[in-house]
Amino acid sequence: MQVTRNTIKISVIGGSRCDAIVFAQAYEIGKEIAKNGAILVCGGLTGVMEAACKGAKDAGGVTVGIVPGDDETNANKYVDLIIPTGLGYARNILVVKAGHAVIAIDGSFGTLSEIAYALTYDKPLIGLNTWKMQPYCDDEDHIPAVIEAKNPKEAVDLAIFKAKDALKMRG
Amino acid sequence: MQVTRNTIKISVIGGSRCDAIVFAQAYEIGKEIAKNGAILVCGGLTGVMEAACKGAKDAGGVTVGIVPGDDETNANKYVDLIIPTGLGYARNILVVKAGHAVIAIDGSFGTLSEIAYALTYDKPLIGLNTWKMQPYCDDEDHIPAVIEAKNPKEAVDLAIFKAKDALKMRG
Amino acid sequence: MQVTRNTIKISVIGGSRCDAIVFAQAYEIGKEIAKNGAILVCGGLTGVMEAACKGAKDAGGVTVGIVPGDDETNANKYVDLIIPTGLGYARNILVVKAGHAVIAIDGSFGTLSEIAYALTYDKPLIGLNTWKMQPYCDDEDHIPAVIEAKNPKEAVDLAIFKAKDALKMRG
Amino acid sequence: MQVTRNTIKISVIGGSRCDAIVFAQAYEIGKEIAKNGAILVCGGLTGVMEAACKGAKDAGGVTVGIVPGDDETNANKYVDLIIPTGLGYARNILVVKAGHAVIAIDGSFGTLSEIAYALTYDKPLIGLNTWKMQPYCDDEDHIPAVIEAKNPKEAVDLAIFKAKDALKMRG
Repeated sequence: MQVTRNTIKISVIGGSRCDAIVFAQAYEIGKEIAKNGAILVCGGLTGVMEAACKGAKDAGGVTVGIVPGDDETNANKYVDLIIPTGLGYARNILVVKAGHAVIAIDGSFGTLSEIAYALTYDKPLIGLNTWKMQPYCDDEDHIPAVIEAKNPKEAVDLAIFKAKDALKMRG
Repeated sequence: MQVTRNTIKISVIGGSRCDAIVFAQAYEIGKEIAKNGAILVCGGLTGVMEAACKGAKDAGGVTVGIVPGDDETNANKYVDLIIPTGLGYARNILVVKAGHAVIAIDGSFGTLSEIAYALTYDKPLIGLNTWKMQPYCDDEDHIPAVIEAKNPKEAVDLAIFKAKDALKMRG
Repeated sequence: MQVTRNTIKISVIGGSRCDAIVFAQAYEIGKEIAKNGAILVCGGLTGVMEAACKGAKDAGGVTVGIVPGDDETNANKYVDLIIPTGLGYARNILVVKAGHAVIAIDGSFGTLSEIAYALTYDKPLIGLNTWKMQPYCDDEDHIPAVIEAKNPKEAVDLAIFKAKDALKMRG
Repeated sequence: MQVTRNTIKISVIGGSRCDAIVFAQAYEIGKEIAKNGAILVCGGLTGVMEAACKGAKDAGGVTVGIVPGDDETNANKYVDLIIPTGLGYARNILVVKAGHAVIAIDGSFGTLSEIAYALTYDKPLIGLNTWKMQPYCDDEDHIPAVIEAKNPKEAVDLAIFKAKDALKMRG
């Protein structure tokens, strides 16, 4: 797969631990991203991140892992391009910023921080069985614009569609 | 007010824009923090941050502002100790880490990222009219441990109580 | 000592390991900073940082430690206000930004990165027996503006003088 | 060019402004990196960074730009994979960490901070007409291990050689 400036990047966010069902869904998401010729960006660790990377590699894709540690040692084995940060969980914001669209699946509080950052930066955000926030106020800054997907394929289709728009706006 | 290693630090998180009711509540929170002899830590900007700082100063307290910009220029005028970061919203994680306990009031997506980080780091977290997350899973990593307060005074009382415990554990 | 918005902050940078002579000099620097009513900012760890903090505390001053770790545990015992970052050595830039002037003493490569950042941000920078860089080009972006001091007292006097100017410009 | 987990990454550091001679050298460096099948990592902006990216692209390579801004807009047009950080100059440390070896050419204080970080993390570091530091102490933590190259081709040959070792050690 080619990596060019106009290659779509999709960030997949989710927990470093997950059950078998979520693992299978994340794997499917990674596979679909690669089939669409897009680059998978993630936090590079285990769980949802590893599943998505494995899926992308099995479909001949390219994966980027922005990891919390100082070096390449903790990246899962399906990450092609490892970006070590040494920033700990402060690297979460970088995972979100690197994608033209973001897919959130399952996940714990780290994933919630990434969802929040995606909303902060107005990134297209697709959710699959993940955090929902109760709006406690009807101001537009308080209505989380998460697009809920029914399954992995729909999540990726939506993300690719939104990412194309984002790329077009960038020029 | 003295600043010592054993002085409690309470982080107050909330939006840079807020209505008059929230402003008054944040002001009260800042005042109560100072009355308890604790240091107020916040993001140093406008809205909830400014209100809380103003309250703390009016009660003779000390305020710390960890700001997103490269220098001291954007801190609100009630911040005593300005910590410029140049990290943009990545500084949110630092605001959370600096406190022995965290009070969240109102707030938009930036505040949500801070709530998420407080939960990630197991910080005592008190909420007053702020984001609620629907647990979509009954694993302990998915049950947000936010303690809801009824009013500013209760929020600070709870935060101080929890912060004392945190300090005791640190030794 | 009071902490107010107009209190001068001096960042002291230097290694986490140092010999007895450097330790004594750093201690003196911390003492002089406190005697001048200024806040000492540093990286919060051992060596030069600990010596400077000890000096400041012995003279009744206030110390701030911006530490690389996630929590308060690795700060030396003379730090009053601990700012945990979890950013590892990326926190070096924050130590530099927090001061109205910077004093570099001795130090290894971490200190060199801080010297470089002080020069990048045009911070008043006083050096005492520390890194010297050979300009390889006569462009103004390549002439390191380090003011060399002869001893700890002179270093602090120069830093306070420059910091007052910086504060005046901020307004 | 393929991007795999075992593809060597070389970070090129240098100023965002440079003269024509340096531009030509940086271009040559980028070209040689691509010819060796390695990925070029840089800060993604103008000057040395743009020259190196242009060289790499002209030789069919792949380029990564870790940029200071919040989005993709300020990356030079020869960057394939843009990693926006929003961290300002704090992103310098990430540029260094991403490479298996680092080549420094020319550069101002930002480059000096990157040289310092490369030394901090014991990264193989090749210098071409860049900062030299006078060791003021004979401790091993104070002897900058910069390997000086005579020309762009030698710089890249040395970097590739050292990077291969680093990759071998990672396993």
